[in-house]
This record gives sequence, C-alpha cells and structure tokens, in this order.
Amino acid sequence: MTYRAPLQDIAFTLDHMVGAGRLAETELFAEATGELRDAMLEGAGRICEESWAPLNHSGDLERSRLENDVVHTPGGFRDAFRTYAEGGFIGMMADPEHGGLGLPLSFASPVNEMTASANLALSLAPLLTQGQIEALEGCASDEIKAFYIPRLASGEWLGTMNLTEAAAGSDLAAIRAKAEPNGDGTYAITGQKIFITWGDHDLAENISHLVLARIPGGSEGVKGLSVFVAPKYIPDADGRPGEKNAITTVSLEHKLGLHASPTAVLDYQGATGWLVGEEHGGIQVMFRMMNNARLGVGLEGVAAAELAYQKALAYALERKQGASPVEDGTGAIVDHADVRRMLLTQRALAVTSRAIAYDCAYSLDMARATEGEEAARWAARGALLTPIAKAFGTDAGIEAADLGVQIHGGMGYVEETGAAQILRDVRVTSIYEGTNGVQAMDLVGRKLADGGAAAQALLGEVSATASQAREGGHADLAAALETNRAFVSTATAALAEADPNARNAGAAHYLRAFALTLGGHYLMRGALADESWTPLARFHLQRLAIRAQSEAQAAMLGADDLYALDAEAMASR
Amino acid sequence: MTYRAPLQDIAFTLDHMVGAGRLAETELFAEATGELRDAMLEGAGRICEESWAPLNHSGDLERSRLENDVVHTPGGFRDAFRTYAEGGFIGMMADPEHGGLGLPLSFASPVNEMTASANLALSLAPLLTQGQIEALEGCASDEIKAFYIPRLASGEWLGTMNLTEAAAGSDLAAIRAKAEPNGDGTYAITGQKIFITWGDHDLAENISHLVLARIPGGSEGVKGLSVFVAPKYIPDADGRPGEKNAITTVSLEHKLGLHASPTAVLDYQGATGWLVGEEHGGIQVMFRMMNNARLGVGLEGVAAAELAYQKALAYALERKQGASPVEDGTGAIVDHADVRRMLLTQRALAVTSRAIAYDCAYSLDMARATEGEEAARWAARGALLTPIAKAFGTDAGIEAADLGVQIHGGMGYVEETGAAQILRDVRVTSIYEGTNGVQAMDLVGRKLADGGAAAQALLGEVSATASQAREGGHADLAAALETNRAFVSTATAALAEADPNARNAGAAHYLRAFALTLGGHYLMRGALADESWTPLARFHLQRLAIRAQSEAQAAMLGADDLYALDAEAMASR
Repeated sequence: MTYRAPLQDIAFTLDHMVGAGRLAETELFAEATGELRDAMLEGAGRICEESWAPLNHSGDLERSRLENDVVHTPGGFRDAFRTYAEGGFIGMMADPEHGGLGLPLSFASPVNEMTASANLALSLAPLLTQGQIEALEGCASDEIKAFYIPRLASGEWLGTMNLTEAAAGSDLAAIRAKAEPNGDGTYAITGQKIFITWGDHDLAENISHLVLARIPGGSEGVKGLSVFVAPKYIPDADGRPGEKNAITTVSLEHKLGLHASPTAVLDYQGATGWLVGEEHGGIQVMFRMMNNARLGVGLEGVAAAELAYQKALAYALERKQGASPVEDGTGAIVDHADVRRMLLTQRALAVTSRAIAYDCAYSLDMARATEGEEAARWAARGALLTPIAKAFGTDAGIEAADLGVQIHGGMGYVEETGAAQILRDVRVTSIYEGTNGVQAMDLVGRKLADGGAAAQALLGEVSATASQAREGGHADLAAALETNRAFVSTATAALAEADPNARNAGAAHYLRAFALTLGGHYLMRGALADESWTPLARFHLQRLAIRAQSEAQAAMLGADDLYALDAEAMASR
Repeated sequence: MTYRAPLQDIAFTLDHMVGAGRLAETELFAEATGELRDAMLEGAGRICEESWAPLNHSGDLERSRLENDVVHTPGGFRDAFRTYAEGGFIGMMADPEHGGLGLPLSFASPVNEMTASANLALSLAPLLTQGQIEALEGCASDEIKAFYIPRLASGEWLGTMNLTEAAAGSDLAAIRAKAEPNGDGTYAITGQKIFITWGDHDLAENISHLVLARIPGGSEGVKGLSVFVAPKYIPDADGRPGEKNAITTVSLEHKLGLHASPTAVLDYQGATGWLVGEEHGGIQVMFRMMNNARLGVGLEGVAAAELAYQKALAYALERKQGASPVEDGTGAIVDHADVRRMLLTQRALAVTSRAIAYDCAYSLDMARATEGEEAARWAARGALLTPIAKAFGTDAGIEAADLGVQIHGGMGYVEETGAAQILRDVRVTSIYEGTNGVQAMDLVGRKLADGGAAAQALLGEVSATASQAREGGHADLAAALETNRAFVSTATAALAEADPNARNAGAAHYLRAFALTLGGHYLMRGALADESWTPLARFHLQRLAIRAQSEAQAAMLGADDLYALDAEAMASR
C-alpha cells in the first residue's frame, strides 16, 4: 500500500474551510503565499510518498534495538531522515537568523501531517526537534540560540524532551531529577527519565536533550522546576561532538506500536547541562514547547485517519465478496452500505480533524501577525482550539484506524496488511503530550476561564456558516448545524459557571460535542465553496455530528453521578 | 494482575436482570437449579483464576509456533486445558448419552465468559469444540455422534471449524474446496482453508476438523455445500489416533493479538472425511454451529470488557498522580472525574453486554424447554438477541479494552502491563464469526422479517421496566428509558417497511441504539431488585444510552446519502 499525499484536500482545507489566505495579507507573513505553500507541500509530499512511506511497515518489523549500549534504527531510516532534513523542513518555522525559513505554523502543519501519515515512527524525531527549537527561540540566551538552533534546524542534531519520571507523568510537580551548579555556569543533572521518544538513536551526530530538573533551594511543585539542554556528546566550541555526556540509555520500551521509534529510559548521572531561561522558570519553557507539540500530536491523529482511510478505500475497491447489493455496483465490498458507512466515517474524521488542526495553526499564526486586541482574540481562538485539535484529532485517528481494521475483515487482524499497524502506532497519541482527559480539562478549565467568550465567539462563526448554508439552499443542513451549535452554546454557558469538578465531569463530553459541531461547520464551508463536498457534509451532519446533542446534554450533568459509588462499591464482585 | 471471577455479578445478572430462575421450573431443566449453577460456576471460576489467568500474558509473549511441521503451544497451556477438560466443562451442554452434562446454555455462557476473561487465546479451543459437538448432535449420524461426541466432550479430542478460503470470507457461496466420494462411504477432500483457529496444536491427541466443501454435481452457491469431519489422525475402531490424514499445516498467521492461539492455513490434499448430515446439506449444519458460536464470541467481548475493567480499576486505585480534586479522596487517579467516567463506562459496557448475552442464552434455553407457540416466541427472542449479543458484546469489549489502555496512561502503551494485550486480543472478535456489519444486516433483515413483531415484543418488556421504575420512585430514569424505547420502536417500524439496502444503511446505527436501550432496561431491573445498582443505571442512562436517540434517528436515513459519491469521488485527492 502506498500513501498518496492529499495535496488538493490540504489546500482546499486551508483555502476554503479555514480561509487561511488572509495570512499573506499580513506584514509578517507577506511572503507566505499560496504558490510558495503549494510548492513546499509538493516537495514534502514527494519525500513522504517516495522515501518515508516505503519504510513504514519494514520499520515496524525491524524495530529500533538497543545492543551493546548503541541504539540501531531500522534500515533506511537514516537516509530517509537526511533527505527530509536537507529539504529544510525541520527548520520551516525557525527564525531565518538561525537558519530557519520563518514560515507560518499553518504551512508547517500540513507537512507534519504528511510525514506522520507516511511514517509516524520516524516523524516524531523532527517533530520533537521543532518543539525544542521553539522553546529555545522563546527562552534561551542568545549564545545558546546561536549555537543550538542552526544545528537542530538543519537536522545535524536532533532534539528530545525529557519530562516524565516513573512517579511524574501528568503531574510535573512530582519531578525529582536534580541539577546542581557546577560553579562554571553549567549544572550537574542527576535522575531517571522515562518514555523519552527518540531518546537515543543513530540518525544524527548529536542529540540535544531538553530536561526538566530541580535546582536545590527552589520551591516545591512546578514552580521549582528549571530547564536545561544536555547534549548526548559535549560539543567543542565549533559544535563538533566530543566526550560522551553522563547519560546512559538504560532500556527501550516494548510498546504496542511505534516499534521503529526508540522510546528510552535515560539515566542522568551528573550529566552536564546548560540552563535555558531563568532558574526555576522551567515550566514556562516547557509549556511553550508543549503547546505546539499538542497541535503536532493532534496532526498525528489526522495523519493516521487519512492513511487508514486511503488504505481501507483501496481494499474496499479491490476486495470481491458476494453479490453486489446495488445495480451498477463495482462488485467489490465498497458497494455495501455498511462498508460505505465505515469509509465515509473515516473520511469525515480525517477531514474534520484536519480542518480543526489547521484552523488552530492559522489562529496562532494570526496571533503573531497581528497586534493588540486583534492579536489577543486570535491567540484566545488558537488556545481554545489547541486541546480540541489534540484530543479530537487523536481520537479521530484511533477511531479511523480501528474502522480500517474492521473494513479489512480477517485481513485487518493479520499484520501483513499493515491495517493493524496504523491502529497500534496511533494508539499512544491520545495518551502522550497530555492525555485526552487532561486536554478536556484544559478546555473546560483554562479555556473557559474567560466566561466562555472565546468559545461563544467561535460558535458565532458556526452560526454564520449556518446562515450562509440556509441562503445557499441547504436549509436542512443549516438547521442541523444550528441545532448542534445551540446545544454546544448552552453547554458552554453552563460549564463556564459550574464548579471545577462539575466542569471536569462534563469535559470529555463537551470536547466531543464541540469538535463534532466544528466539523459540520468546516464541511459546510467546504460545500458552500464547492458543491462536491456537500455529500460528505450531509453524511457528517446526519450520522456523526447529531451525536453532539447527547454529548452536550451529558456535559451538563455535573459530577455527582460519577461519585455516587465509592471505589470499593465500583468493583466487580 | 489477577482476574477475579465475578461470581456475584454473574448470579445477579441471571437472577435479577434476566430472570433466568424460571428455567428450573421447566421439565427439561428441572435439575438446573441455582445451587447447581453456583457450584459449577465456582469450580470453573477457580480454574480460571488459578490456572488459566496466570498464563495469559506469558502465552502472549511465548506464542504458538510452527516448527518442523509441529505446532508448539506456550508453556502450561496443555496442563491448564486438561484441568479444565477434566472438570467436564467442555461437555456442559452435550447430551448425557454422549458423556455430556445436559446443562442449559445459560449455565455454560458464564463459564465461557470466565474462561475468555482469564485467557482468551486458550478459551477458543474448547469453545469451537462445543460448537462442533452441537453441530454433530443436531445433524450427524448416530454412528458419528457415538464415536466423536464423547471424545470431544471429554477434551480427549478438540474440534475446529474450517470454512474460510482466501476468496470466501463473509461469502460462503464462493467456497471452492471439493470432496470426491472414495466409494467406501468416505470422501477425499481437497482445498486450502485459512484462518483456522486452533487449526493445529499439541493440546489433545487428535483434532476433529469440521470442513465445508463441495461434492461434484451439486448446485452453485451455498446450497451445493456439504460438511465433513476430517480428523488430523485417522482413528482406529477404538478411537486411537492412527495414520496422519492428508492435511498439512502450511503456516500460522502473524496476528495483532491472540498470539497463543494458533491460527492456521490448512491444506487438504485428498484428506479423508466423513459426511455430516445430508449431501449438499452443509449450510444447515454450519448455521447450527455458527449460531451459538456467535453468542460465544459475544461473550468473548463481555469477558474482555470485564477483564479490562478489573485491571483498569486496580490501576486507578493504586496510581498516585497530582493532588486529589475531591475531599476525602483516595489520592489515586480514581478520584478524578474523567477517570471515573472512563471506569464507569467500562463497567456499564461489561454489565449491559453480559445481560444481553445471558438473556439471549436464556431465551434459547426456554425455546428448547417449552413447546408450540411459546417455544416459537422464545426462539424468535433468542434469534433477535443473537446478533445484538455478538456485535454489541464485541464492540463493548473493544471499547472497554481501549478505555483500559487510556486509563493506564503511558503504562497502557507498553506491553508489560497487559492492558494493550486485552485490546489486541479482543480486536478480532468484531470480525470473526460474521463481522459486526453482517450481524447488523442479519438484525434488520432476517430478524425484522416478522414485521418487527419480536423486536416490538422485547421493547414492550423495556416499557414494562420503565413503568416499574416509575412506580419504584425512579421517575427520571424511567422517563429516560421510555424515551429511548420510543425512539427504537419508531426505528423498528420504519426499518421493517424499508427496502433491503435502506435497512442495511441503518443497520449498525439501529443495532447500537437497540443495545444501549436494552442496557438501560437490564440495569434498571437490577436497580429495582437491589438499590446499589441505581448509580450505574443512572450513569448508563444519562451518559451512554442517551446516544440511542441519535443512533435511532440515523438508522432511518435510508441509503441515499451513502451512495451520493461514487467510488472515485470518495477518494482523497
């Protein structure tokens, strides 16, 4: 099975569902034209199709392995990575002063989506490197920026993110790794970090670890955390890798999927690190890095949904089984109503989660490209969309991959077709970078802390789309969209006034209702721009988004029913 | 992690949600008392907990392997199987005349559920053997019955089911294997069968394959199929395994899960087979075997939901992470509203899918134990519940296992916790024994062919429960249940009159709506019998079953929206 970069769909989503063309009208992104974007996406798409996708299944089988203290990545990965790095894609968004291209996030996002479709395991290496570049750009000293960023942007070095410890997952306050001043401006870092994606490998000459640790004397909790860069090899003044730092790769995890991506346990034994930002200012640095990483992970879900759909459709068009239930059918299983229901569900999941993610990227771009109140509005819009893009995107990827297995029937359960691999690979995305439960709590907590203003403003856009649909002759679809909008508006108002745990009790329901409603909004915008999108808009609104109503109602139930049983009474007997 | 047989929940489901106590009032099952049942379940539960469950994870790692033409099963499997066989459980339902216990399906079903929770891979071996016993009891000659059934019931031999060929999955009409008369009453079978569960192994001294093939001269399609028993070793007159039959184990599949269960490709090269039933009467034999197998597979889903729930709850009670959001919390993640939402969803899925499956078994028992119109009503009720038990049970298992991974966070994605294994193992259950799409088509096709009479009769029981709930002081829950019932009733009437493909287009939605509504009915019955079940009934009705309304509406959409795009226009671009 080959992956085909959906360049037309991507451009259509940006241009007509999101309306990102306005970006080139700003001063900051004046050069970010549609022509430049399309040329860049075509180049990236070709690498994904020709170099990355062919290694997806072989990488799964071969796995990354730790042998004699060295991590070996699967055959072809190093060359595929280099091809991509040489295209300048890692530094797409980085400041041109440090070797980047200075392009908007809404250009980088489709590239990241395509790499994740083609080879999710490999795509994590540049994604985390982009996150590190962003964190350094925002917080590091000029010296560190000038030294690290060009090497990361070129892919000469790769970056990792070292947060999690055995007792500190969602709760960063529990981090125990410590960093003691060496007296020469550097720090000695000690502690064990787990779940480090691409924590060790042979793709690049050096690895720059961004590490959360505590400098003695700081406060308890997240406010006592500091961030450091700790390279695998201590570089000399010219950046050449020298002596190995005191960081040991203890083991690689045996995971459900992403077998080609080495997930390491790293042991820091007084490793040398350089402070990034202020002492005890680590959490700001990490949040900066994690924010766009959340969108990036959401795009991994979009990517899996797209790949699973392409694969399932190809199978459904080819697999003959029984008599066709329709006249003039193809004779393949795509003729069956329930197979079509599953395929269109996949397609709707991929398209709507993509539109949400791209609109999130566009909002964050506009927040940078505008000023004052306008910038604040765009920033709030992007911040609101981030947890939705992450949680709905990854849920969509998992659901579409699961449907892909189902459409393949028995062949979906055997590993040779690769349908099961998509599910295994994408399954972690609803967990890492903040579980989807944490995303939902962020949405109903921080993102409704404005009394629901940003949410209601976005829902106002949905209403405007419904009005246009009504005027455009789609009265029934307009009504469906507006009904959903009204349910989500009501839930927004209710949650904005609810106490924190009542919000949390409705969080997952609310996020799902919001995402389904937004999906209808984007598809309707698409249908208004091009009639050929109307059937998918109809399918989504009638069969999938209708569920937003029950989810919005469930969102307002409060927390009492969840606590009616104590832990003991919950158990099976 | 240990599995604990939920004996109290099982007994409560049978006694109060289903009301299966009436069974002992019939003549046929007069000896099938609650005391006997509980003693039997306790014995089976102990074997599951102590012998089977400890091998679940090691079996996954060790896998069944084909080496030098011999299939080796994981360490301990043979002894665990023998312990179970010696308990008489394989022949629970078989005729005492042939060494069985003659117990009802509603006694065997909980046993099958527990074995599937404890070790799904191993449980398939006795399950398929039970199916073969049933097929032989119904259709084979007295000679074959007397020769095969006692050996199968004792576990001395094991049975398999050989239907699928590379081009014949859901479509049995495409089967090409042929059986030519040898002139001595036996047949020479030639062809290749795939996806044969426990198709070869070392658990028993012989394996009896039940094979679908075509005797030359029969008609095309399913009406030309015949069924044969073809033992791995040709037995002598005393049943001792002799010469090897001409059946080669070509390979074992590399599957997503169920690694300990050998799924074989079997090549028949003129293998000797004995006809079961009439020439060209094979499809009746197979449907007999497949019918109860569907319920058995539904129970595999129930089992996975139960196991995933037990495991996730144990983790949620133990894992500390962050400050508790509630006063007097345990300090573990079970305190968090969204974790509770996920846990209660698992619990509701396990309990409601169990009740549906047990009520299906009970109906089929009553159909055997009664006569005339009463028997016909029970049979129709059981037939209606069978596709729901299969499809909803397996969907419930997959969803609960997926939630189990999520609740474990990062630890859910690494294989050592076993949370991911439950998902990998159960994932096939919505595919084999008729995909869930095929089940849904059976529900809206054959099972509504009575104009919806059986469905409306069952929905009448739901109304009665709602009335009792209203009288019992649960006005809000009664209203929720009755609203769902009304939606499903309306959809039933609409589908019963719709054309076939419009039915199929709504089939999956309808099945889900029906199952969610039935879930509310059983939980409400439970709550009326014991108040401690009220919180779960409330959770289910308010947060999960409410979705039945949108699903019932989607069920009535017809097929047009699914065919608005031709195959080419569906593709990503």
